[in-house]
Amino acid sequence: MAAQYIDFLTLKYLLDKVHGLPSLLQLERYQDHNMESMELFLDAVKEFSDRELFPFFREMDQFPAEFREGEVMVHKQVGVIMKKGGEMGLICGPFDYEIGGLQLPFIVHTAAMYVMDAANNHLPGHLTLTLGAAELITHFGNSDLKETYISKMLSGEWGGTMCLTEPDAGSSLSDITTKAIPQQKGYHLIKGQKIFISGGDYPYVENIVHLVLARIEGAPAGTKGISLFVVPKLRLEGGELVKNDVSTLADFEKMGQRGFATTHLGFGDHNNCRGWLVGEAHQGLKYMFQMMNDARIGVGRGAGAIAMAAYQASLAYARERTQGRKLRSSGKKDPMEKPCLIIEHPDVRRMLLLQKTIAEGSLGLILLAAKYHDLALAKKDSETKKKYEYLLEIITPIVKTYPSEAGARAVSNGLQVLGGYGFCSDYILQQYYRDIRIYSIYEGTTGIQSQDLLGRKVLMDNGKALEFLLNEIHTTITEAIAMDSLIPYAKILGDKIKLIQEVTAYLMPIAKQGDYERFLADATVFMEFMGNLVLGWVWLDIALKAESDLRAKDKTYSTPFYQSKIHAMKFYFKYKLIKTNALADIIMHKDGLTLKAGGDYF
Amino acid sequence: MAAQYIDFLTLKYLLDKVHGLPSLLQLERYQDHNMESMELFLDAVKEFSDRELFPFFREMDQFPAEFREGEVMVHKQVGVIMKKGGEMGLICGPFDYEIGGLQLPFIVHTAAMYVMDAANNHLPGHLTLTLGAAELITHFGNSDLKETYISKMLSGEWGGTMCLTEPDAGSSLSDITTKAIPQQKGYHLIKGQKIFISGGDYPYVENIVHLVLARIEGAPAGTKGISLFVVPKLRLEGGELVKNDVSTLADFEKMGQRGFATTHLGFGDHNNCRGWLVGEAHQGLKYMFQMMNDARIGVGRGAGAIAMAAYQASLAYARERTQGRKLRSSGKKDPMEKPCLIIEHPDVRRMLLLQKTIAEGSLGLILLAAKYHDLALAKKDSETKKKYEYLLEIITPIVKTYPSEAGARAVSNGLQVLGGYGFCSDYILQQYYRDIRIYSIYEGTTGIQSQDLLGRKVLMDNGKALEFLLNEIHTTITEAIAMDSLIPYAKILGDKIKLIQEVTAYLMPIAKQGDYERFLADATVFMEFMGNLVLGWVWLDIALKAESDLRAKDKTYSTPFYQSKIHAMKFYFKYKLIKTNALADIIMHKDGLTLKAGGDYF
Repeated sequence: MAAQYIDFLTLKYLLDKVHGLPSLLQLERYQDHNMESMELFLDAVKEFSDRELFPFFREMDQFPAEFREGEVMVHKQVGVIMKKGGEMGLICGPFDYEIGGLQLPFIVHTAAMYVMDAANNHLPGHLTLTLGAAELITHFGNSDLKETYISKMLSGEWGGTMCLTEPDAGSSLSDITTKAIPQQKGYHLIKGQKIFISGGDYPYVENIVHLVLARIEGAPAGTKGISLFVVPKLRLEGGELVKNDVSTLADFEKMGQRGFATTHLGFGDHNNCRGWLVGEAHQGLKYMFQMMNDARIGVGRGAGAIAMAAYQASLAYARERTQGRKLRSSGKKDPMEKPCLIIEHPDVRRMLLLQKTIAEGSLGLILLAAKYHDLALAKKDSETKKKYEYLLEIITPIVKTYPSEAGARAVSNGLQVLGGYGFCSDYILQQYYRDIRIYSIYEGTTGIQSQDLLGRKVLMDNGKALEFLLNEIHTTITEAIAMDSLIPYAKILGDKIKLIQEVTAYLMPIAKQGDYERFLADATVFMEFMGNLVLGWVWLDIALKAESDLRAKDKTYSTPFYQSKIHAMKFYFKYKLIKTNALADIIMHKDGLTLKAGGDYF
Repeated sequence: MAAQYIDFLTLKYLLDKVHGLPSLLQLERYQDHNMESMELFLDAVKEFSDRELFPFFREMDQFPAEFREGEVMVHKQVGVIMKKGGEMGLICGPFDYEIGGLQLPFIVHTAAMYVMDAANNHLPGHLTLTLGAAELITHFGNSDLKETYISKMLSGEWGGTMCLTEPDAGSSLSDITTKAIPQQKGYHLIKGQKIFISGGDYPYVENIVHLVLARIEGAPAGTKGISLFVVPKLRLEGGELVKNDVSTLADFEKMGQRGFATTHLGFGDHNNCRGWLVGEAHQGLKYMFQMMNDARIGVGRGAGAIAMAAYQASLAYARERTQGRKLRSSGKKDPMEKPCLIIEHPDVRRMLLLQKTIAEGSLGLILLAAKYHDLALAKKDSETKKKYEYLLEIITPIVKTYPSEAGARAVSNGLQVLGGYGFCSDYILQQYYRDIRIYSIYEGTTGIQSQDLLGRKVLMDNGKALEFLLNEIHTTITEAIAMDSLIPYAKILGDKIKLIQEVTAYLMPIAKQGDYERFLADATVFMEFMGNLVLGWVWLDIALKAESDLRAKDKTYSTPFYQSKIHAMKFYFKYKLIKTNALADIIMHKDGLTLKAGGDYF
């Protein structure tokens, strides 16, 4: 298939020049890797995606996952990706050597998964869920659990899932009712149902290992009484795999991402479902949330990748499709003139630049979070470690949300570029449009991410995480001010930092007065504000590196390539960053219009 | 079906109190109607929609229009709506008595169609297209054409379509190539293909009358060489209906509105397709565009109605679904407390209020345009007539665009209210989400509407139309200033009027210099600016009427009903109107970032 789904050059540029992968590889943890091996790895992933992912993207939508006689039927490529992906190190990559991993920088792993998400977002989730489940066992499980599960999971022979949501609990994990009844022999009997379990069942692996949140009998109410269990579909008994009373009750039919099954699972319908406690009792939610950052970055990554793929599809269309004519100075068009390519129309260029800035900016942001993950992990000095941990904490809800929300708008613009064809099933844009819509719901909705950002991350350690973030932004501003052509943009971003301080100075007293409902009422607006602003920073950073390379006459990338990045930054500042002022005004408008107190109003 | 798809009370309130239907009915043209008969009519339409439209909404998506052996199969309700709709006056309603119409105010007809669109947007288009086609014949056709077609069309026995778009022309009508070859006997032979023809074929009517844009052999290039023809599927010969060599070549499969066929039609494959010229040669596009205002209002109406239906569905869900708990002043939640309804969470209320303000505000705007149509038609004094014609001209692209663009965002928020369920096929929100996406493409994309608004309507008659519009807005401001509680909002809107003047003062010299490309480069941003602002006016007007009725202790509607309208206005001003400043800044930022001149940049 000749169609492009990714700007691979920009991906490499962001890794190499903007996020400084070469210097990251100097860290002890990554010393066995080098730029050449990393490029070979990414090239292999790209080639694999060209061959095994992208060609099946349309048909996984047309022939979605289907529930038949107690089993979920999914596309055969799910088997291919688990097998080949396992072999290629796409599950074990980020793990430590001692557990069978490759100690691959998370930023490189993230880039690899991004390529695959862009090629076919219905498939990589099978790998990342298996990775996440294995990570929980690795970090918190005892040696028995590790021995039984890890190598099978890292190789892709066994799959993994995360089972949090229940029919009546939704986003409210404190209401989980799945029960765990302690048994003599070191396991618990599990009883309950879980819904919205992505990749919860597929026939192409030997076994599926569910990481299940449940409440041990007698545990306290709320989130503090939740424990984490390993509950395999098949359990080992005398060296044999036998059924563990895990059943698939249904598959949710969805508007998009239809090839990636979303299942309803039953545990212990016949009182014979065994689960093994991970770590200590009642610590389940804590464990889960320690792993959640990566899962959330993964969601942002998936959404960002779809925005990228949609941008490539729109761009290709706009470069081929002729329609209409350029306006002449009279305001008229000359019908005798040949129709022009639609990419010459300013309105089409505006839509494409919007797509570009959101797609590439999101990618820059996603890789930045992955870099923080690497630095937090690989740095030895505890102060430095803490700094990157905090940066990761505060940026994660934004990395999850910005690509999901802005990405959906970017894809919608992309569909619009195609006009009526964009709405038609024969064109790929409508599938991206449907697929991307789930990302602002996955792993905590935008509303929940926003409460996390404002209610936890901004407040944590007396605002220390936010302080670290503002320092990072400030560093970029200082560097940009050294380049005269960037001074106006550096100044704008400097003003925006002051605006953040103004907004938080307004909000903090409300939190201190204990009026949390009001404090968090516009958390989602705060998220939009911060997301827009952080993207402005990401773009200034990209432009700064491009400008430096242009001045240094670095020929790694072409002059038009560097110029296009600077142009995109200018576009972003003009069309998007400017909106942060209005968002700040909304947040600082203390009227309680969305609080219940005043009346029903609907 | 118990589910609500419309706030019928608000519809009646907007007609009665906000847009003053009683005084409209005083006009001579409408003197046979009164409020009672209008209410009975709307009640009958609502009852019809409850029974024959809404119950089939989901299944028309699940079993979409399908092309089989040269024919398009559509749901049987298409037949019901044509037959019953014809009988109920839903086609003939707005026509003059002399042609067989009811001289129904267009605002009432629009309200009726809105109810039906909200109930099932896959169906009413069959009626409105027939109406539009009949209107073209009525206005521009000779008596033979009128006699042959009108009564059959107004009764719904024959359907009608509009055939503009061609495979290679898209939005660029000047490139139309369908040929019309003059014959001796008063007709032309038609030869060509048309795509994206909504309701282009269905088996439940005797005949379908296509209004086709074509180029008479030897006609000049461009839009000035286009003529309009009546091309029936079956033509009358000796009192018999015989085939007219119109064939259905395909049906476009789409992401949404799948029950409303979008066809690809062939004319004259066997050189035996006859078309009858409507009006004069080479005037086709002019005729078409004289009817286009109503078609564009119809598109805005459809989108607004979907936003309304989605709002009702989200609201019902939020009133039933419990999840999570209110935050206490400690910032913690008490897990022993019962979960609350999600409508109590500020973020959910924010999303619902956003839906409400967009849905109800769009309805207010749509009805306003319909009222201008009525006043332009029914007023006798030529100056007054001109004023309303101009108001209709300038507001139409906004009425087409705002509900389509903002409506899609409202529906997306509505989907988000349902969390994961919103994405699932079992819930109705995802269908609204898919269906509404076509509206910003239909009948001229948002880009085209925006160029129409800024490039034609703002400039027309030296800015006279804009002047009329600003005067109207100013009248509302003056009235609002008389109510102390509304003064702050009246002042804000007053400032926005100045902002419009500032923006146009900035843009006009660019147009005068002949730099049309730059002048129109951000036309879409100008559209968003004007749309947001006009909605602010619509909401201030609604709040003004509500406040008056509250003060007058008018009990027609309840106190909480009036209060909810005032609250919605405040919400709209805080969350949406505020964004106009940034939009104005974007427009007044003269940098040509989207012009081609500087380089490729992608």
